[in-house]
Amino acid sequence: MKALLDDLLYGGDYNPEQWPTKTWDQDLTFFQTAHINSITINVFSWALLQPNEKYYDFSTLDQIIKKYAAADFKIVLATSTAAMPAWMFKKYPDVARVDYQGRRHVFGQRHNFCPNSPNYQRLSQKLVEQLAQRYAKNPAVVVWHVNNEYGGYCYCQNCQRAFRQWLKTKYQTTGRLNQAWNLNFWGHTIYNWDEIVVPNELGDAFGPENTVTAVGGLSLDYQRFQSESLLKLFINEKKIIEKINSQVLITTNFHGTPNPDLDYHQWAKHQDVIAYDSYPAYDTPAYQTAFLYDLMRGLKNNQSFMLMESTPSQVNWQAYSPLKRPGQLAAQELQAVAHGADTVQYFQLRQSLGAQEKFHGAVISHANTDQTRVFKEVSHLGQDLKKITPNILHAQSKNQIAIIFDWQSWWACQHIAGITQDLDYQKAVLTYYQAFYQQHLPVDVIGVNTDFSQYKLIMAPVLHLVSGKLAQKITDYVTDGGHFLTTYFSGLVNETDQVYSGGYPGPLQKVLGIWVEETDALLPKHNCPIKFTAGPKINGSLVCDLIHLRQASSLANYAAEFYQGTPAITENHYGQGTSWYVGSQLDAAGITYLIEYLKQKVPTLVPLAVAAKELDITVRYQAKQKYFFILNLSESVQKLPQKFLDGNFKDLLSGKVMTDAALPAWKTLILQQFN
Amino acid sequence: MKALLDDLLYGGDYNPEQWPTKTWDQDLTFFQTAHINSITINVFSWALLQPNEKYYDFSTLDQIIKKYAAADFKIVLATSTAAMPAWMFKKYPDVARVDYQGRRHVFGQRHNFCPNSPNYQRLSQKLVEQLAQRYAKNPAVVVWHVNNEYGGYCYCQNCQRAFRQWLKTKYQTTGRLNQAWNLNFWGHTIYNWDEIVVPNELGDAFGPENTVTAVGGLSLDYQRFQSESLLKLFINEKKIIEKINSQVLITTNFHGTPNPDLDYHQWAKHQDVIAYDSYPAYDTPAYQTAFLYDLMRGLKNNQSFMLMESTPSQVNWQAYSPLKRPGQLAAQELQAVAHGADTVQYFQLRQSLGAQEKFHGAVISHANTDQTRVFKEVSHLGQDLKKITPNILHAQSKNQIAIIFDWQSWWACQHIAGITQDLDYQKAVLTYYQAFYQQHLPVDVIGVNTDFSQYKLIMAPVLHLVSGKLAQKITDYVTDGGHFLTTYFSGLVNETDQVYSGGYPGPLQKVLGIWVEETDALLPKHNCPIKFTAGPKINGSLVCDLIHLRQASSLANYAAEFYQGTPAITENHYGQGTSWYVGSQLDAAGITYLIEYLKQKVPTLVPLAVAAKELDITVRYQAKQKYFFILNLSESVQKLPQKFLDGNFKDLLSGKVMTDAALPAWKTLILQQFN
Amino acid sequence: MKALLDDLLYGGDYNPEQWPTKTWDQDLTFFQTAHINSITINVFSWALLQPNEKYYDFSTLDQIIKKYAAADFKIVLATSTAAMPAWMFKKYPDVARVDYQGRRHVFGQRHNFCPNSPNYQRLSQKLVEQLAQRYAKNPAVVVWHVNNEYGGYCYCQNCQRAFRQWLKTKYQTTGRLNQAWNLNFWGHTIYNWDEIVVPNELGDAFGPENTVTAVGGLSLDYQRFQSESLLKLFINEKKIIEKINSQVLITTNFHGTPNPDLDYHQWAKHQDVIAYDSYPAYDTPAYQTAFLYDLMRGLKNNQSFMLMESTPSQVNWQAYSPLKRPGQLAAQELQAVAHGADTVQYFQLRQSLGAQEKFHGAVISHANTDQTRVFKEVSHLGQDLKKITPNILHAQSKNQIAIIFDWQSWWACQHIAGITQDLDYQKAVLTYYQAFYQQHLPVDVIGVNTDFSQYKLIMAPVLHLVSGKLAQKITDYVTDGGHFLTTYFSGLVNETDQVYSGGYPGPLQKVLGIWVEETDALLPKHNCPIKFTAGPKINGSLVCDLIHLRQASSLANYAAEFYQGTPAITENHYGQGTSWYVGSQLDAAGITYLIEYLKQKVPTLVPLAVAAKELDITVRYQAKQKYFFILNLSESVQKLPQKFLDGNFKDLLSGKVMTDAALPAWKTLILQQFN
Repeated sequence: MKALLDDLLYGGDYNPEQWPTKTWDQDLTFFQTAHINSITINVFSWALLQPNEKYYDFSTLDQIIKKYAAADFKIVLATSTAAMPAWMFKKYPDVARVDYQGRRHVFGQRHNFCPNSPNYQRLSQKLVEQLAQRYAKNPAVVVWHVNNEYGGYCYCQNCQRAFRQWLKTKYQTTGRLNQAWNLNFWGHTIYNWDEIVVPNELGDAFGPENTVTAVGGLSLDYQRFQSESLLKLFINEKKIIEKINSQVLITTNFHGTPNPDLDYHQWAKHQDVIAYDSYPAYDTPAYQTAFLYDLMRGLKNNQSFMLMESTPSQVNWQAYSPLKRPGQLAAQELQAVAHGADTVQYFQLRQSLGAQEKFHGAVISHANTDQTRVFKEVSHLGQDLKKITPNILHAQSKNQIAIIFDWQSWWACQHIAGITQDLDYQKAVLTYYQAFYQQHLPVDVIGVNTDFSQYKLIMAPVLHLVSGKLAQKITDYVTDGGHFLTTYFSGLVNETDQVYSGGYPGPLQKVLGIWVEETDALLPKHNCPIKFTAGPKINGSLVCDLIHLRQASSLANYAAEFYQGTPAITENHYGQGTSWYVGSQLDAAGITYLIEYLKQKVPTLVPLAVAAKELDITVRYQAKQKYFFILNLSESVQKLPQKFLDGNFKDLLSGKVMTDAALPAWKTLILQQFN
Repeated sequence: MKALLDDLLYGGDYNPEQWPTKTWDQDLTFFQTAHINSITINVFSWALLQPNEKYYDFSTLDQIIKKYAAADFKIVLATSTAAMPAWMFKKYPDVARVDYQGRRHVFGQRHNFCPNSPNYQRLSQKLVEQLAQRYAKNPAVVVWHVNNEYGGYCYCQNCQRAFRQWLKTKYQTTGRLNQAWNLNFWGHTIYNWDEIVVPNELGDAFGPENTVTAVGGLSLDYQRFQSESLLKLFINEKKIIEKINSQVLITTNFHGTPNPDLDYHQWAKHQDVIAYDSYPAYDTPAYQTAFLYDLMRGLKNNQSFMLMESTPSQVNWQAYSPLKRPGQLAAQELQAVAHGADTVQYFQLRQSLGAQEKFHGAVISHANTDQTRVFKEVSHLGQDLKKITPNILHAQSKNQIAIIFDWQSWWACQHIAGITQDLDYQKAVLTYYQAFYQQHLPVDVIGVNTDFSQYKLIMAPVLHLVSGKLAQKITDYVTDGGHFLTTYFSGLVNETDQVYSGGYPGPLQKVLGIWVEETDALLPKHNCPIKFTAGPKINGSLVCDLIHLRQASSLANYAAEFYQGTPAITENHYGQGTSWYVGSQLDAAGITYLIEYLKQKVPTLVPLAVAAKELDITVRYQAKQKYFFILNLSESVQKLPQKFLDGNFKDLLSGKVMTDAALPAWKTLILQQFN
Repeated sequence: MKALLDDLLYGGDYNPEQWPTKTWDQDLTFFQTAHINSITINVFSWALLQPNEKYYDFSTLDQIIKKYAAADFKIVLATSTAAMPAWMFKKYPDVARVDYQGRRHVFGQRHNFCPNSPNYQRLSQKLVEQLAQRYAKNPAVVVWHVNNEYGGYCYCQNCQRAFRQWLKTKYQTTGRLNQAWNLNFWGHTIYNWDEIVVPNELGDAFGPENTVTAVGGLSLDYQRFQSESLLKLFINEKKIIEKINSQVLITTNFHGTPNPDLDYHQWAKHQDVIAYDSYPAYDTPAYQTAFLYDLMRGLKNNQSFMLMESTPSQVNWQAYSPLKRPGQLAAQELQAVAHGADTVQYFQLRQSLGAQEKFHGAVISHANTDQTRVFKEVSHLGQDLKKITPNILHAQSKNQIAIIFDWQSWWACQHIAGITQDLDYQKAVLTYYQAFYQQHLPVDVIGVNTDFSQYKLIMAPVLHLVSGKLAQKITDYVTDGGHFLTTYFSGLVNETDQVYSGGYPGPLQKVLGIWVEETDALLPKHNCPIKFTAGPKINGSLVCDLIHLRQASSLANYAAEFYQGTPAITENHYGQGTSWYVGSQLDAAGITYLIEYLKQKVPTLVPLAVAAKELDITVRYQAKQKYFFILNLSESVQKLPQKFLDGNFKDLLSGKVMTDAALPAWKTLILQQFN
């Protein structure tokens, strides 16, 4: 086990190679003014480091590292392999990807290397060898940042060849493959591995990338294969660095909301620390950002993560980028810390003068001065972070409730043709997350391989793909006293996207005590009323499962349609535990009531606070201390819950005991409970 | 003339090759429970039948046929040529189509063979030879189902070569071609046949496939050529089968609403029986489905057709697939019978576990039991169909009114650039169809080559393309006492999409007694009021033709715009008959009033019933019996017209004389008039 | 300097090659009836003129020219190079363009020649040599019309090669290029010119053509390169003609609203006379058409231009083409004359019977008669034009106010990623133009190279790209007493799309006396109130610049948001002049008030009339005469301003002194002030 960071990093991406060296000195002074203690460099420097295949030039990078190391900055050093030099595309066209339309790309943009290009593999690894030999033992380099925001797929001949091999290894015989993917459908039966083609617009696609295709099993395996192909690149770079320095932290920056292309649960095993680029849009609700932070924290079982990128001002890729309001910057950065971040890093420290991101905000803007509003807010936050570092660094987050977020189910849902096009895996998970978040019942976001026994309640909305092993794990969890909740569209398919024969929800029928015969699709804006046996009438939407009770009992019945009076939500006592099935998408009132009900059934579920739905309230623990992060992430004044006004809570930032219930817009409190 | 089916087939598509043989026995029992007497097999089995170019394997198919023949099932045997094996794409890439974007496709999906690929032609015919030799004399095989849902176009070099040859045969000289397509426009004049290129996105297209292109004549001929190329494939397969058994029924399944790619009037001549795959969407109005059935029946001058596919439950390709409500299944299947179907067949008998259609409904669902709601409804309908077979099988449908639906005019309209983009050929036809349907004045849907003398009134909305021969046929029909109605955008172009010089509507000016000088376009949601000389003021939309009366008189004038007071609807007495021209798209009130007027002018037009607009009412005749099909295809109770309550109508299904006016949702009556 | 046209041309595009010769005689008579004195021919005849590479055939063209010359028609002779013959695509595929998707096109459509194809260059020049030798000295040929509506870009290998050479000439070293485009961003650094690739969908594009790309400098240079490549084709054709006849007028027809692909300011230098194809849509507001005419007139410093194309009736490419209302045709043609046109030409004189434009209107319609409404209106206008020719031909238009329209800023804006996607360069310019137009303060539309000293007030909304030289020119203009107004998003980038370091708006900070620190983006339909210091409260939208006053003072402050009370509009006295900066998009009330304010500050700004916002009022001057064009371009009666009713204004068309204030729909007055 490698040692974690020994300080809270404050800094971010810095591209000094875009400016003359005299600018570097000015920048260093600015950074120090702003309490910035770290820089992330070399993210896109391959073309500078290697002007042609035979020649490397590290002189500029040497200078940068030397200057900043001398000034005690902690350096996050990228490997630069995310953007290939122009000469490489010219010399080795296969390094570029072939897109879903079947078109080979040329030099341009970034993040466009084919993961199965032998030339890319060789040239990128050579570069990393050079970098590792030169800098891996440099104590200023505290984290290696491999590549950048891995993502996207390739559909080239090299990938196709490697995919066939991957399938051969996995299925052994074409017969097994034919069966696994049901290839007798539409006469897709194959007899040789080289009859398999990549699933793209020229082949099996029915719509844009990662939507409906003819053979779900094929597409699902292709996603796994591409995710693994990219992961292999990461692992190979990592190994090269570790050969020189086995103790240095190595990671890559995850991204997206989240990234749909990579199974981050699989990737997380290979990261020394999770790093995440967080870019909430101007209209992203705070709970969604919180969810993503909890997801990142959950990837390595609640280990703190790095907030590797975030914007100090506008992003450049939004349709509309309103300025961050005064105070908004600090509040949004501290939300990451509240949910488990141990670094606060920006993209970017200095704003580009030209090219795609020239209007992406920066600590040092085009005005080239420390007299801007943004610079001053960055400095102020730097001071605050310094203040709280002793309390917060490595502090733990840990909850009794978990919600499953699973790339395999997400992927399987993407390829579904039928019933309703509005099925949205992420939305289904977020709906439950949001309800718990607003009730200040914090949840961990976990994968299917996490140890379930840590949790009192596990929710798994739309757990569409359930292997036999997972079904057994769930069953065991409930048998042993666990509480498990799942919904419509769960348990339908196995690992190769084949529906379980014998009734829905396949291998979960037993633990849930039900049989779902049919699923009605509701049109957009249409509802079906649902009446809780001992509660209110609320609305379901999206779908209504037609449920037969086996061992389960009904908590709520449909109150309309030809299935009026039949179960909509069921409860089953199984072994020492209980399981629930929710056959429709509940409205807010429905989920709220369901949570009230669950709180009675799972009595250890106690909210951190009551009311104050607009606040983000979470806790980090260190030693025996408990720090409540209370964030007003709205543009209006909110009311602090009464419990924090009892004289026992002191704000780390102001040093004051809380007495005033009014929490201004964008205000953050970090309350230490001292009694 | 081949003999028609001697029983009403009840069954549908069955793909036993997707399951182990032990499932087959269970399925057979299920089918018998449900009164299913027929299976359609081998639709997508090419890859199974022919693992490579040199080897065929019919063992599985033999087994299936043997088992079901032994159980007295009537088999509809497909030729399997609609989905090519993967090895074929690998070995002969030219079997795949090149799309409108100019991209050669690879293995995937289905229905993607190039009709002019010599390899596809050779290999598909070889397969059919094998099948024919093996099964064509098997008495259990009552219908051959060639290929599947032919459609789509190819734009490859083989097609281009064949197209040039096709043009050379048609036009003889490039000079004639230049003139026919007006190629001096935009300097398109050609001198050699090999200067012609397929009209696609890299050439003459201005928009997506089958929309605006630079040269309408070229695009129109390419559609004819592709339709004929596919038809040739059909004919070739048919010939092979007939060589072995000249008496067996051979067809292919038509589809779409309808399929825009093929001129089904041309295709119909080569079908022994019309077969149609009917998939009304959840929100398809009943009259549209009725129209499609009437169109299918009209393709072979009112010969009964096969309902070759329909879904027992959800389809998998809709945005939203609500469940069929209790009773809806039977009502929808019987609507086909009401309009002339002599089979009721499902896609599918058993639901796939994997791949694209896994959520398409089936008689035997994933639950794998006969205890589902759907299975029970299927069984009940099976019983009912058995009951009515003696009365209904081969019963005739025949009406006095016809509406023309013409692929040539449809195609020509697709390429129009100008006046209004909202011109919609199908909608124009359906608007008139709907009005007559709702007034229970059933119409036959015919082609331009149908014998017109059978009808008292022929309507031809937007008959855009009118050859000189057709103009003469219409003129003769009216001369001989016929009643003919047409509209705006009719008679404008000849067979090569050239506008007739000398005024609109070209060669129809004489029989209509008018000259249309200009056509005003109305914006969406804008109307122009129209006042009937002796009737109400109603609204026109879409376009307003500016009409000069020659011999005609005005029935209605525009009541606004600068052409206020000029004719909007005209009537012309010509020879023994009368013709009408409607210069704008009328609203419902306008068409209703027009029908009232027509009923006075064409006195034999007597509705089957009055009121009850929501009901589908039609008649089939057998011997001297008359069977009224009265379908409530709505979700609410409807009122049965009074005339059926006079004690003279007995329902074939219940055996009861009608006494109650209330017709529940989805209720069907088949009333025999016994007095 | 060549002599200008000695008569007002009335006529337009005529394609007799689409009809048999007997039609030509009839047409000639029709033209004479309609007072048509000119035809534009040979626009798309290449394929007819040159059946193959070795053979030319001018016999048909000879005949046409002979017939019309004999009848005293003035001929506008096109060079036919805009649509290549089919055989040329077959023989030399490189003549066709490669599109933004990377696809080589084939024969079809028109305007699709690659400007850097050596084969196209050679073959087109050879054709023009032949034409020039044959007709350049023919006195009937009064104008040469080179090619047709140049536009669009190519992305082929020939273009790529030529582009690399173009860049090498411009930047000399790759080092300078790397710096100019900031290529160290995303590791785009290049070392050899052949590492540069065209910016298309396979390379640097983030969206459709001419939207966001990774490297703005690259895309901007590619637009310049393509514009110049096409211009070179024009220049080469022109030189060939001038070699034979150095005095004949040579032009090409500009188009679009306007054409976004070509920098017409650069092109205008090479035109003997500006020619413009004007196609206002049915819903184009009259001020937008006026703007385009003023832009065309401004391209050669107020020299009269040719209205080279316009439709006598419907266009064929609109979604909906309502008919022109009675009188509308004349009013719309005369609007061009009012704004500086010295010709009135139609596309087209005779309507095609087939192909893409068969429903585009014509003087002689499909009806093939002179008895149509359109023909009669055309004739009437012909008579009127004859009447006014002595007064109007070569009459000058000249104004005291100018607005800058600059292709370089437009292009630079296209590639911006960030702040707001709603930034619309044209809309920004039009908003100011419209306000002045409606107040009858006519403006000239000029380029950045126009002599500024001619104007009292110059407006430059969103002048995004400002070279150092231009900044100096603006500064000098104000120093010398000029009045200059600019807005948000101005002065941000230099000629290579690099942001000026040191604060916004870069080199305009000094003359404006301000520093803009940040730019807030407003969401669609959101406003920010702005309060004029001594005026009303109005609304800003799109963006709000956060402005620091240096030497400037505030005219108006934001009245909401966290920047409430800070300046929104500033005024700076600089040298002898004044400059204004408008930090947000003002609503109509805001601009109206601003104009009132400017009228006080720039006292020579006196409207031509007050009230009557719906009228188009402009003036042309000849000798000492002043002709007021007063056009009612609306569908309702408007009121003539009182000043024209004082007995001093006589209408050239009716010959009457004005006494009646009511101006019917589509009525035009040409008032000569005789006192």
